[in-house]
Amino acid sequence: MEQLKQEVLEANLLLPKYGLVTFTWGNVSGVDREKGLMVIKPSGVEYDTMTAEDMVVVDIATGERVEGKWKPSSDTPTHLALYRAYPEMGGVVHTHSRWATTFAQAGMGIPAMGTTQGDYFYGEIPCTRKMTPEEIAGEYELETGNVIIETFKGIDPMTIPAVVVHSHGPFAWGKDAHDAVHNAVVLEEVAFMDWHAMMINPWKGPMQQELLNKHYLRKHGPGAYYGQG
Amino acid sequence: MEQLKQEVLEANLLLPKYGLVTFTWGNVSGVDREKGLMVIKPSGVEYDTMTAEDMVVVDIATGERVEGKWKPSSDTPTHLALYRAYPEMGGVVHTHSRWATTFAQAGMGIPAMGTTQGDYFYGEIPCTRKMTPEEIAGEYELETGNVIIETFKGIDPMTIPAVVVHSHGPFAWGKDAHDAVHNAVVLEEVAFMDWHAMMINPWKGPMQQELLNKHYLRKHGPGAYYGQG
Amino acid sequence: MEQLKQEVLEANLLLPKYGLVTFTWGNVSGVDREKGLMVIKPSGVEYDTMTAEDMVVVDIATGERVEGKWKPSSDTPTHLALYRAYPEMGGVVHTHSRWATTFAQAGMGIPAMGTTQGDYFYGEIPCTRKMTPEEIAGEYELETGNVIIETFKGIDPMTIPAVVVHSHGPFAWGKDAHDAVHNAVVLEEVAFMDWHAMMINPWKGPMQQELLNKHYLRKHGPGAYYGQG
Amino acid sequence: MEQLKQEVLEANLLLPKYGLVTFTWGNVSGVDREKGLMVIKPSGVEYDTMTAEDMVVVDIATGERVEGKWKPSSDTPTHLALYRAYPEMGGVVHTHSRWATTFAQAGMGIPAMGTTQGDYFYGEIPCTRKMTPEEIAGEYELETGNVIIETFKGIDPMTIPAVVVHSHGPFAWGKDAHDAVHNAVVLEEVAFMDWHAMMINPWKGPMQQELLNKHYLRKHGPGAYYGQG
Repeated sequence: MEQLKQEVLEANLLLPKYGLVTFTWGNVSGVDREKGLMVIKPSGVEYDTMTAEDMVVVDIATGERVEGKWKPSSDTPTHLALYRAYPEMGGVVHTHSRWATTFAQAGMGIPAMGTTQGDYFYGEIPCTRKMTPEEIAGEYELETGNVIIETFKGIDPMTIPAVVVHSHGPFAWGKDAHDAVHNAVVLEEVAFMDWHAMMINPWKGPMQQELLNKHYLRKHGPGAYYGQG
Repeated sequence: MEQLKQEVLEANLLLPKYGLVTFTWGNVSGVDREKGLMVIKPSGVEYDTMTAEDMVVVDIATGERVEGKWKPSSDTPTHLALYRAYPEMGGVVHTHSRWATTFAQAGMGIPAMGTTQGDYFYGEIPCTRKMTPEEIAGEYELETGNVIIETFKGIDPMTIPAVVVHSHGPFAWGKDAHDAVHNAVVLEEVAFMDWHAMMINPWKGPMQQELLNKHYLRKHGPGAYYGQG
Repeated sequence: MEQLKQEVLEANLLLPKYGLVTFTWGNVSGVDREKGLMVIKPSGVEYDTMTAEDMVVVDIATGERVEGKWKPSSDTPTHLALYRAYPEMGGVVHTHSRWATTFAQAGMGIPAMGTTQGDYFYGEIPCTRKMTPEEIAGEYELETGNVIIETFKGIDPMTIPAVVVHSHGPFAWGKDAHDAVHNAVVLEEVAFMDWHAMMINPWKGPMQQELLNKHYLRKHGPGAYYGQG
Repeated sequence: MEQLKQEVLEANLLLPKYGLVTFTWGNVSGVDREKGLMVIKPSGVEYDTMTAEDMVVVDIATGERVEGKWKPSSDTPTHLALYRAYPEMGGVVHTHSRWATTFAQAGMGIPAMGTTQGDYFYGEIPCTRKMTPEEIAGEYELETGNVIIETFKGIDPMTIPAVVVHSHGPFAWGKDAHDAVHNAVVLEEVAFMDWHAMMINPWKGPMQQELLNKHYLRKHGPGAYYGQG
């Protein structure tokens, strides 16, 4: 558990390093599937003084805090909903990073326009629908998780490891906390490039499906040949 | 008073840290309501050599300098007008930060398009009307304060702690000098994201009122549950 | 002369500090009017190893190098043309800074849309006309100076201390080399803000003349009251 | 060979220095024409721990690895295709740098709109056609090289030392590895300025041919007079 706390701390500290957060806006979690526990950043605590001991341990099934002196991130129920729905998910990150949040505020998904996206995301990074007044007035953070899950109906979330929540901002995930942050950095990069390509050539449309297949599959799955594998 | 000078100095030094100012363009003030005094940055002095002793103390009621070797910021009458109109205001900041000033130059308010804004501002950050030739030729800096006050008629300025002055730039405020700068940083962030969302999807419009309510009220007021509070 | 070389060196080193140059793209000069000499950066030399001894001294009247081991900047004839035309000019800078060059490439001047510009420039920063094939094929760098001078016919260049040369980039100037660089930094800032304001509100037009008068004249001329006076 | 490895290492390390890469996205190679060998970055290895010993040596003619403990960059066949087609090419670089990739994703070349481009590129930096499903399904990285070569039919690639590959990103080259990276930095700069000039003035079109001639030829070829030559 100490090792997971350290990993989650380090993954959280990558957020300011990569310019994904202002102040305390952002949180990363990681899970220990055997123990059924999630480690997450505390709510509203500053990054520059945070230590592994500040991390909060939460029971995935019950949502109860089982260890830690702080309240967990207010987005905890969203993280838990994702972990419960997707057993292969090992890390989740939420930020208000500038470029991905731009698409969230525009209510638009991030189409696959180039191989940068194709190397990590097997298609458009979707935008959720608007939440209903009932969902917002109810268990809002849990319903945020539910609307993400609804968006991925029929899509394996591990092949498109990010989403933008309408009028809010991005969530990204991966096999562990570091991988989730890695995907959040790529998301920001492709959001930047898509925004500019869409503005300068609004009629362009997404890349060819064959090229997307090629790039995604040369890095993922049984035929992968990228890296030192 | 020495503590307030130190606080106001530190709040001023946050402006270059957060990239909100070029050269000496920007000033922060704070007040001691019991003594009826305001502490503000001197006019045209460099940030990197400034000390607490360079801060200028001004009587809020009379506008007279009561302490300090320098002339106060030329925007002093604007700060004073705001403090006189709003007793709950403890700090004010003015900058020509790039994104907020873009909206000021475009003569447009910054609509509430996402939860980043909703966490801090309970609605659109307004743009003032153009000032009249008489106001400009008269006590210009005081009239700048007056046009801000006119803009907030019917709005509690503590719920929308910033404005962009038409063809000029932003003013932000808060419960103290640091809080004012904090809000100025958020303003810059939401101006960036709104600008890009509006460009890529001009028909989008603001976020749902329910979502704005939810985000503003989970951080402010009696039902707040964000942070360690 | 050693002091002027040091000043010109320092002004040149401000270019990378303020992010106005990539590689060796940019040069600053300063003049000693009594001696009739200009000191300028050498051509194509790296900023990080440059010393005062690398600066080149050129006779303003004849254009001859009178001191220095390097060839002067290839833009030397442009600087000289400006110094010959405008006796009050003490420093000149040329860069390919990103935002000002964007306007040069678009063939557009930078309108006075806000008080940031009004504090330094008394009106639109103009774009020169395209140069003719004859001017380009002739003494090109000298003709670049001439087309700037033509652009300022009827305008005091000290009140609008910058220009963008069509399809090329900005020149700025001032009372000395540091002042010229200062104006080049402001130019970049206002080009950024104008570009974004013009994109989001193409119908906006320039600021009110009264407001421009107020801001320019509160910092310049006999009635100025900004700064420590 | 050790010297070339060191040069190629250093050229690769310039990529993060100039902000052209995120993570391991990017690779530089250099060649020893006498030995018929290419040195290239290994695939998927981190920049901050890379040493000259990590570089991989590949036979240009056969494509076989002749030295090195890692697999070479997965883009190796593209580099080799370029070196085989163009004997004067001494270095090649591939990145997913933000501004050039924006044009690749928009499927657009980067027109010569200003003298910054004219100082390095003798005309528009072209965008390749889309690759066919057969090329993508076949020897994809080799075919990427072939489509670049097709694009430069009738153009001397040393006069326009960069290309954007459709829906992918830029390749740049030069007389050696450092020169290739230098051109990649210029490419990013001109892509930035073109994008903004094209957005603010979509009808502008490229610069005058005479001005392009002047700037390119004052730095290149027998009549060059820029720098200390």
